[in-house]
Amino acid sequence: MKKLTLKFGGTSLNTVDQIKKVANIVKKRHDEGNQIIVIVSAMAGATNDLMSKSKSISKNFDNKELDVLLSSGEQVSCSLLSGALIELGIKARSWLGWQIPIFTNKNYTSSQIIKINTDEISNFISKKGVAVIAGFQGVSEEFRITTLGRGGSDLSAVAVAKFFQTDSCEIYTDVEGVLTTDPSINEKAKKIEKISYEEMLEMASLGAKVMQPNAVQTSMIDNIPIHVRSTFSGKPGTKIISENEIDNKKVITGIAYSKGNAKVSIVGVVDKPGVAADVFEPIGKNNINIDMVIQNTSLDGKNANITFTIKQEDLNKTLSIIKKSKEKLNYNKITHDDKLAKVSIIGAGMISESGVTHKMFRSLADEKINILAISTSEIKISVLIKEELTQRAVKTLHKAFGLN
Amino acid sequence: MKKLTLKFGGTSLNTVDQIKKVANIVKKRHDEGNQIIVIVSAMAGATNDLMSKSKSISKNFDNKELDVLLSSGEQVSCSLLSGALIELGIKARSWLGWQIPIFTNKNYTSSQIIKINTDEISNFISKKGVAVIAGFQGVSEEFRITTLGRGGSDLSAVAVAKFFQTDSCEIYTDVEGVLTTDPSINEKAKKIEKISYEEMLEMASLGAKVMQPNAVQTSMIDNIPIHVRSTFSGKPGTKIISENEIDNKKVITGIAYSKGNAKVSIVGVVDKPGVAADVFEPIGKNNINIDMVIQNTSLDGKNANITFTIKQEDLNKTLSIIKKSKEKLNYNKITHDDKLAKVSIIGAGMISESGVTHKMFRSLADEKINILAISTSEIKISVLIKEELTQRAVKTLHKAFGLN
Repeated sequence: MKKLTLKFGGTSLNTVDQIKKVANIVKKRHDEGNQIIVIVSAMAGATNDLMSKSKSISKNFDNKELDVLLSSGEQVSCSLLSGALIELGIKARSWLGWQIPIFTNKNYTSSQIIKINTDEISNFISKKGVAVIAGFQGVSEEFRITTLGRGGSDLSAVAVAKFFQTDSCEIYTDVEGVLTTDPSINEKAKKIEKISYEEMLEMASLGAKVMQPNAVQTSMIDNIPIHVRSTFSGKPGTKIISENEIDNKKVITGIAYSKGNAKVSIVGVVDKPGVAADVFEPIGKNNINIDMVIQNTSLDGKNANITFTIKQEDLNKTLSIIKKSKEKLNYNKITHDDKLAKVSIIGAGMISESGVTHKMFRSLADEKINILAISTSEIKISVLIKEELTQRAVKTLHKAFGLN
Repeated sequence: MKKLTLKFGGTSLNTVDQIKKVANIVKKRHDEGNQIIVIVSAMAGATNDLMSKSKSISKNFDNKELDVLLSSGEQVSCSLLSGALIELGIKARSWLGWQIPIFTNKNYTSSQIIKINTDEISNFISKKGVAVIAGFQGVSEEFRITTLGRGGSDLSAVAVAKFFQTDSCEIYTDVEGVLTTDPSINEKAKKIEKISYEEMLEMASLGAKVMQPNAVQTSMIDNIPIHVRSTFSGKPGTKIISENEIDNKKVITGIAYSKGNAKVSIVGVVDKPGVAADVFEPIGKNNINIDMVIQNTSLDGKNANITFTIKQEDLNKTLSIIKKSKEKLNYNKITHDDKLAKVSIIGAGMISESGVTHKMFRSLADEKINILAISTSEIKISVLIKEELTQRAVKTLHKAFGLN
């Protein structure tokens, strides 16, 4: 007998009929003799609808009240699923965050889980009950409702798997698993059978939407194996596990991309200690995320060029911030590009394999794709290119690294 | 400085714009220096939508899970209203049933309030905070969500007024107050300025939808004055108070009606003790509500005719139940009518006024409206007529008793 955490996302719960199908999946796993804890997201669209209501009332809607509002979405889906399970003759019960409780800190709208009380639910599932937990929500020590931020149900699932020490954590979603790249721009995308936490983290951070990056990170820290799989097909999906458990490592596991990037270059700043801090401090204070950063020193060693990328929607604000610091930074000029994409190859195997960088740049050059910036980590290489070339770049790299 | 309970119904909260308007009403009362507790229903339509989802999943949806589901409606409206108040610069906070807590018994889907903890909210409103409480919901001693049944937010409001000892309990709704009759069938309907609890109870039970009957009863028991008024006009509405506080009593306060009734007569049952119980026991066990009951003894004193009324939708079931008892009841035949209406005149003054009954029957006779059954109490007289004659009967009686 195993203890399982099963998490169902919003697209798996988008209609009442779909909720009934999910109930049947849960019943099957329960009938196999497993102890089951289910975590649900809100029905697809519910959270957006609530969010848009709050925005019509205030552009700066109170965080604590927003959490009360948004958490109602999971309250609906977990009671409906519990009702559907009871209709199938299963002993089932819904638990809201405050009922368990799932204690979080007080960062309303983006709280972190601190502790989950396991007594009541452990007792319930040990007596053949199926526990259905509302994802995305918790409660602060002052007993006000908190939420974990967008995609937070994945975090709930990983935390439940951790605190209840379940044998596995299965993330049911509307795709077959984690794919080598986005199938909407490359029909040759294939399901990855096994991927390491680190690779998945890069994939998730770089645009693969199948799992929330913070949830991947948490599962990595606590070494909780994740199984991302389809609600609809029943086939095995992708296992996210420790790198050392993966045999037959591929050099490159997947290709990720993100569109809507912009690049800013500050040309001819004085090359002295602290200049990078002077550039980035005011930008960071305005909640603008800096992605890639490249600093070149000019040939005479006196001046430097600083280049960085940001989200396109932050471009105007960023430019005006830098212009305000003109006197302090004492630069020659600013240049910028927008409509850029970042395309990344990811693979734990590239550490030990030479020639990956070379192969990537050559493949892109052969397709006449100009590289505007490069950033690397131990398990990924990202390049900045014109957005319109994204699809061509992804297809080229997908083929070049043997993923087709 | 007064302490006020203000309750807003679903039609007062049907859109985000309407919620903003309600926030302005609350702000005005707060700016006048009052301590304010607001109770909200779900946004109009929300509860029906959730109910229909549950019915698509199971015709017999689990009661406890239904309460989790339905209570989300008020969670949405109370957080949105709190957010709207905060946007207006007011210190406001939402409270869900379990957070206060509002303790109820364990009759899930139709619970009764046992106790409301007042400490936290009393402290909050004494420091100029506006407390916004989700109506309709509470929590059982095992800390599962309960609801109070349809229209339960009125019950929440009356209970809050009682436990917090507020100076008044104002029920904001989409009509001007309690009217002498339904304006959709008689344009001469007028707002009643003052009505006694007893009269209101009859009006509410007999079809006037402005306030939930149980809530009226609770306010009567605890002598809590109610003010039913319009969210939209700002004018004073109807005060529901003790009879002894009403001067200038009218003989008849209002005319109520309910359509969709059916009448069943069992002709020629043996007239012996227990026969009525034999008739009604199996009907009651099938959750069919009996309304009027008339029993006549035949001239020879051996046989009796029993006539009673039920909701039209229960007619077929009722007939088949009686036919099953044919042997036991030993009756001659059954007759039945459907498409009937019950029209009632209500007034505490009729106790001391002679001739009311006579006047009612004469007025209807003058309009050639045939009376099929009669039932009376100290403050009301109800007659059963053909449904198609409802409007004519209401208009005739409204005029005859000086309400035009």
